[in-house]
Amino acid sequence: MPFSLTPKDQSFYRLFSASAQNLVTATDVLDEFLREHTRRTELADRLRDLEHAGDQSTHAIFRQLNSSFVTPFDREDIYSLASHLDDVMDFVEAAADLVVLTGLGTLPAEMNQQTALLQRAAHITAEAMPRLQTLKDLPDYWIEVNRIENEADKLYRRLLSRLYSGEFEALEVLRLKEVADQLEEAADAFEKVANVVESIAVKES
Amino acid sequence: MPFSLTPKDQSFYRLFSASAQNLVTATDVLDEFLREHTRRTELADRLRDLEHAGDQSTHAIFRQLNSSFVTPFDREDIYSLASHLDDVMDFVEAAADLVVLTGLGTLPAEMNQQTALLQRAAHITAEAMPRLQTLKDLPDYWIEVNRIENEADKLYRRLLSRLYSGEFEALEVLRLKEVADQLEEAADAFEKVANVVESIAVKES
Amino acid sequence: MPFSLTPKDQSFYRLFSASAQNLVTATDVLDEFLREHTRRTELADRLRDLEHAGDQSTHAIFRQLNSSFVTPFDREDIYSLASHLDDVMDFVEAAADLVVLTGLGTLPAEMNQQTALLQRAAHITAEAMPRLQTLKDLPDYWIEVNRIENEADKLYRRLLSRLYSGEFEALEVLRLKEVADQLEEAADAFEKVANVVESIAVKES
Repeated sequence: MPFSLTPKDQSFYRLFSASAQNLVTATDVLDEFLREHTRRTELADRLRDLEHAGDQSTHAIFRQLNSSFVTPFDREDIYSLASHLDDVMDFVEAAADLVVLTGLGTLPAEMNQQTALLQRAAHITAEAMPRLQTLKDLPDYWIEVNRIENEADKLYRRLLSRLYSGEFEALEVLRLKEVADQLEEAADAFEKVANVVESIAVKES
Repeated sequence: MPFSLTPKDQSFYRLFSASAQNLVTATDVLDEFLREHTRRTELADRLRDLEHAGDQSTHAIFRQLNSSFVTPFDREDIYSLASHLDDVMDFVEAAADLVVLTGLGTLPAEMNQQTALLQRAAHITAEAMPRLQTLKDLPDYWIEVNRIENEADKLYRRLLSRLYSGEFEALEVLRLKEVADQLEEAADAFEKVANVVESIAVKES
Repeated sequence: MPFSLTPKDQSFYRLFSASAQNLVTATDVLDEFLREHTRRTELADRLRDLEHAGDQSTHAIFRQLNSSFVTPFDREDIYSLASHLDDVMDFVEAAADLVVLTGLGTLPAEMNQQTALLQRAAHITAEAMPRLQTLKDLPDYWIEVNRIENEADKLYRRLLSRLYSGEFEALEVLRLKEVADQLEEAADAFEKVANVVESIAVKES
């Protein structure tokens, strides 16, 4: 259990919570983006803004890390946590950008399901971040994220199987796979966030 | 040289050996899988079971790591070693699953050669794991794994060159490349295992 | 600020500088390679030689690391720096090799632009390496590399958008993307080098 923290250290919890909250918004926007064809340009711009906001949070965490003599956890864990949260945002933004860039129209329903899993992962990650302060009630979070990532993996393979079924022509398969891969990587990055939280909790307990 | 170890610590060597032994079995099954078309579903299921068994070993190592005050090597190295061994298994299982998922038939002979290299790497890795206890006679192991990975790299590029030669149509290239990439990543993961072993041996010597 | 270093430690700066200087040469050769079709085989061989020379430098750094009791920075940072410099070389060499292997002819102009960014990144990285000794005047370097990587990212997405525009047939898209991905990964690896330099500078200051 970490002993009483200086006010400065408290800012890490606020910064991680802000970062994760940003992912809740981003995955909700991605869900809208996939369903509403006519608003895609507008919503992709929205995601770009959220990605910039995410970069700001990440750099705020790094600056805080570099200027703190004492940190609530290992520096390396703080760095990893911030980096993996940032990665999720990058993959979510890239998924939408690639849909626009490659001129994709209607997307396979599996991508909406991938996105629903990301929304769920974002939600429970944002709920868990403030609990880093007490390190209580965290196992439910990482177990659930691991379960989500497993489900995302199966869904991704089912999507691959459909992409190669002959339903789509080769260039369309390539386009769709660019997007599917980003969504899959976002799910993996959520799992990496959860792995860091687990390792922090184990070390500090 | 590490000083005398408590019985608890000994379990790490057993767990790493079990993990690597599991890879010997998995790469042998993969070899069978590639050659025997009619048994592919059965053998892919077999690999899925081995992958689950691998996950159990990995988690046993992590639990042991979290509950040990003293560990025979740096915690980070134990974590890396277990993770990279687990990665090999994931790539091997994914290769077979993708063959089934994408409905591939006869595969290029280069994939049998890729698999033969993985079998050899698994074999010498399983032989090396018990030697972590004395840290003796390990250089031959990592030099040979590096050699195998170099050969795997050349083989992978030769396969790519064939895939793009015009012999296959675009969708078939995509399907085959999914599998080839997993086999290549498995070879890379074996090299990462060897790199961790080298770094443990150097630090402890 | 690191205190006075033994002569042995000084060799790290020389080795990193040699490694980065090797990248200046390699990215210049890559630029020539892309523009001069008739000399491609010769220049790809040249890149293979440079990649072997790079491997020698990397192993010299690892050997030096393993035989030094005192190192000017954290061992892990030295290891990361050497590895990421080596990664850049591997991606540059692979890009050229894939052009030859997949029998590509004229390449999209965006690839020349990607390479120009790599040349610039190599140049400022080679200039920065000797400054590791005093840890002075480094922020300009990592800020500029981050800017270059951002530009490379935009360029890569523009190239993807063109690849999927219908201008190229599917197999050609696959071939070109293999190369584009290596160039993009080289830019990412330069950023990872800069991130390690930043983290060294922050810790030692």
